[in-house]
Amino acid sequence: MGTLGAMQDFPLRIMRLMDHAEREHGSREIVAARADGTTVRTDWKRLANDARRVARVLERLGVRPGERVATLAVNHDRHLAAWYGVIGMGGVLHTLNFRLFDDQLDYIVNHAEDRVIFYDRVFAPLVERMKPRWKGVREYICFDDEFDDTLDSEDGDYAWHEGDERDPCGLCYTSGTTGHPKGVLYEHRSTMLHTMSIVAPDVFDLSAGSVMLPVVPMFHAGSWCIPYAAALSGMKLVLCADNQPERLCRLFNEEGVTHTAGVPTVWLGMIDHVERTGSPLGKLRMVIIGGSAAPEATIRWFRKRGVRVNHLWGMTEMSPVGTVGAPPSNWDEMSDDEQVHYLTRAGRSMFGVELRTVDESGKVLPRDGVSAGRLQTRGPGVVRRYFKQDQDACGEGQWFDTGDVAVIHPDGSIQITDRAKDVIKSGGEWISSIELENAAVGCPGVAEAAAIGIPHPKWDERPLLLIVRSNGSGVCEIDVRNHLAAQLAKWWLPDAIEFVEELPHTATGKLSKKDLRDQYRDYRFAGAEAVVGRD
Amino acid sequence: MGTLGAMQDFPLRIMRLMDHAEREHGSREIVAARADGTTVRTDWKRLANDARRVARVLERLGVRPGERVATLAVNHDRHLAAWYGVIGMGGVLHTLNFRLFDDQLDYIVNHAEDRVIFYDRVFAPLVERMKPRWKGVREYICFDDEFDDTLDSEDGDYAWHEGDERDPCGLCYTSGTTGHPKGVLYEHRSTMLHTMSIVAPDVFDLSAGSVMLPVVPMFHAGSWCIPYAAALSGMKLVLCADNQPERLCRLFNEEGVTHTAGVPTVWLGMIDHVERTGSPLGKLRMVIIGGSAAPEATIRWFRKRGVRVNHLWGMTEMSPVGTVGAPPSNWDEMSDDEQVHYLTRAGRSMFGVELRTVDESGKVLPRDGVSAGRLQTRGPGVVRRYFKQDQDACGEGQWFDTGDVAVIHPDGSIQITDRAKDVIKSGGEWISSIELENAAVGCPGVAEAAAIGIPHPKWDERPLLLIVRSNGSGVCEIDVRNHLAAQLAKWWLPDAIEFVEELPHTATGKLSKKDLRDQYRDYRFAGAEAVVGRD
Repeated sequence: MGTLGAMQDFPLRIMRLMDHAEREHGSREIVAARADGTTVRTDWKRLANDARRVARVLERLGVRPGERVATLAVNHDRHLAAWYGVIGMGGVLHTLNFRLFDDQLDYIVNHAEDRVIFYDRVFAPLVERMKPRWKGVREYICFDDEFDDTLDSEDGDYAWHEGDERDPCGLCYTSGTTGHPKGVLYEHRSTMLHTMSIVAPDVFDLSAGSVMLPVVPMFHAGSWCIPYAAALSGMKLVLCADNQPERLCRLFNEEGVTHTAGVPTVWLGMIDHVERTGSPLGKLRMVIIGGSAAPEATIRWFRKRGVRVNHLWGMTEMSPVGTVGAPPSNWDEMSDDEQVHYLTRAGRSMFGVELRTVDESGKVLPRDGVSAGRLQTRGPGVVRRYFKQDQDACGEGQWFDTGDVAVIHPDGSIQITDRAKDVIKSGGEWISSIELENAAVGCPGVAEAAAIGIPHPKWDERPLLLIVRSNGSGVCEIDVRNHLAAQLAKWWLPDAIEFVEELPHTATGKLSKKDLRDQYRDYRFAGAEAVVGRD
Repeated sequence: MGTLGAMQDFPLRIMRLMDHAEREHGSREIVAARADGTTVRTDWKRLANDARRVARVLERLGVRPGERVATLAVNHDRHLAAWYGVIGMGGVLHTLNFRLFDDQLDYIVNHAEDRVIFYDRVFAPLVERMKPRWKGVREYICFDDEFDDTLDSEDGDYAWHEGDERDPCGLCYTSGTTGHPKGVLYEHRSTMLHTMSIVAPDVFDLSAGSVMLPVVPMFHAGSWCIPYAAALSGMKLVLCADNQPERLCRLFNEEGVTHTAGVPTVWLGMIDHVERTGSPLGKLRMVIIGGSAAPEATIRWFRKRGVRVNHLWGMTEMSPVGTVGAPPSNWDEMSDDEQVHYLTRAGRSMFGVELRTVDESGKVLPRDGVSAGRLQTRGPGVVRRYFKQDQDACGEGQWFDTGDVAVIHPDGSIQITDRAKDVIKSGGEWISSIELENAAVGCPGVAEAAAIGIPHPKWDERPLLLIVRSNGSGVCEIDVRNHLAAQLAKWWLPDAIEFVEELPHTATGKLSKKDLRDQYRDYRFAGAEAVVGRD
């Protein structure tokens, strides 16, 4: 049909976003609250120029299109310039999580074959320690010490590298619970489609008038595509090198922040700070919460202050946004409780993301709000094959198994009930460790809770509940048991409750069930031992 | 790089929108206020089923993928089902403008090689009259008489035709001022990218909670992609067979309409109705105005009632949205007058649309708010080659000449000053016919105005201003002259002002300058004749 007529050829390349921001929103500010305490201001026009100079520097260093360039840095303007500079010269931006262990960083940098690493001075000891192991890295550029001078030697006369829209542009490793981390190689096309999707009113709701402070680190799953969405919408971006509630709140007020985004833990600290100091939230009107489930109390706290909570679910393998926590069409007819209840779920499919649940035999389950099954997904932003793997990560029909267990409600909203590997299998039925934890956290005096399955001779597994008390709280086992009994089925109640000082977390701040399972590998219930003893 | 890793394959096909709406927003209503006065209700799930049955019917009639199927109909649910059904079976939806002249309809249907035509009963006389001339059309299906029965014979068991994302999906002819109408052949990809763009907060701002009543006809430039955007966002769609202000207002209130869209003339009628009857506007919060420039008074009227006016510019060749009239980032710092002044412009580039102005030698002009030049555009939604043409419609770098004359302001906002062919060339300088008309319409007692260039022996061309008085107005030439003199440069003032009963309009409701120029071909200014006489 091509000869009958045609629309223009326009490959979906990331740098069209930068072109747009530079041309249409050139003077819109980018504010960086740096690690040294200073606040610097640049704009899209100057950032584009910096990115062009980064691209020149990389080409001069011999980096070729398709090769990986890593960053080891917190959120700031230079990181953003490097981000777009790497992609602008056709390179693949590999954002490193500085919270990983040395062995993981060793594996990842070598597996990615990173050629150049940009890093913050604060990570210099890590870099020095790792240099002997990172044999393929040709050059290290410290953002604080050499970056500006290096750029000053270039004149910014550069035309972005062009190519196919399926060329890679980003690489992000997920630290799996078993085996080596796996890399998701994002493409220009997948990232562009994802970016176009997330600016929508039902997703991040971003316009030229928005001011976004992403608390989510730039290394975390492509920073949820916020740096791209910022360029598309021409909004003001406020980057903060740390996530101290006091500093964030000051930026909210001083910079007129309207949107923010981050994992639930960040908001717990923020809420605590605001409650203690009475700090206002300025023009904040949306807080995007992802990474793990937001507690109901967090959602209620923001709602009470007129801030819309957009609670969503996704994963690195999904570019990463999968669902949107936006109000459904019958929102206005719902009671306050119904609305909050809806918001505690993981949202519904964003356009371009298909979701389904299947049982252990692979049969597709109904969207009945009851049937729990493995959550699968597919779409243009979903990984087909991990970096350098021989086999596709998805099965027939491109369905990718998320590793989550979920229930889909008739209205399309998703309720993540557990990670498939964390679910507690008791007598052929599944107990959701997450629901158990959420119920426990609702008990006054409980700061954090974790539920894991402990082998049981009769039931296969039974729940052990670990509790961290709030500061100064004297909550005891009876309190927790009474609280749980009021809202859970009897067979869901834990066989034992242990009080601990702290719980292990992963590098991204999630509860590390794997560490807990290791730690409690030899744990036995008092009753179960008796049973074993009796047998 | 393909072997190193990959994201999933997901061609941008229109029917993914329908799949999404059916799956995630299946019970969201589609309301149709039909021509017979009845109001019917369906939803995305039932619409998808109807579309599948339309696809089956078309396949049974021998229509093959890539072939054109036309509709000759106003806005209603059956039209929407046919719309998606045609595209669902791989066909190309050709929406006919029933206001065209017989010769144009003859040319267009034969040039498009339409195989089947769906039509409203009200257009039966037109169809009967044209049948002998439309020799390639195999089948006619009347929406009112045969459509439902035809669908009832199918069971809806159908899987959408799959194919390449660059396959055509829609065809729309533009009635040029010279020569035959030209067809723009939209592709699945270009339409999908356009749809993803227009739901953004700065464009149509559409979410699942939105209720849209598009007054723009479904035949007009793909109905501004609203039927697609509706499916993507899962919003409620309200279709009205006519644009009687009373009926529209009743639907606004009864259906909770939040968004509406149409050409400026529609709103003049609406404003008049509301002023006379005091009818409320219900939950209306955005009126999208395109097709031609909206008068300042219209913008102010809606603003005063808390309705955001999104004034944008585009054309059939652009899919069709080119600019967005959304608030710029410094909106809150602007005065009321400054805001209104901004809104009277044609907005700024939507992401994916590049705009520039060039002078007559092709040199790119600065964005200085002063330099007027031919407006050019490019992007994934812009036509490269008209249907069945041998040559591309765009030049080097894919720049397409819009035929408009514009000034681009430093903030990126566009001011359309004229159509290139309507501009009045006086002594080597350009007089904007549109600015002259806008100034004249601001004079009390003036209902409508048109300015055209009349050949002049000394100045090449000089302006003739044609005025239609408001009902009962006795406005005279001196009034108009005094009004114009207060706001325009002296050399812009018309050499003559004529009062007329009515002005000619095109099929899409725009002033027909071509007809005016024909009508006044032999017109000579009294003074000019004297000059000629003296020579």
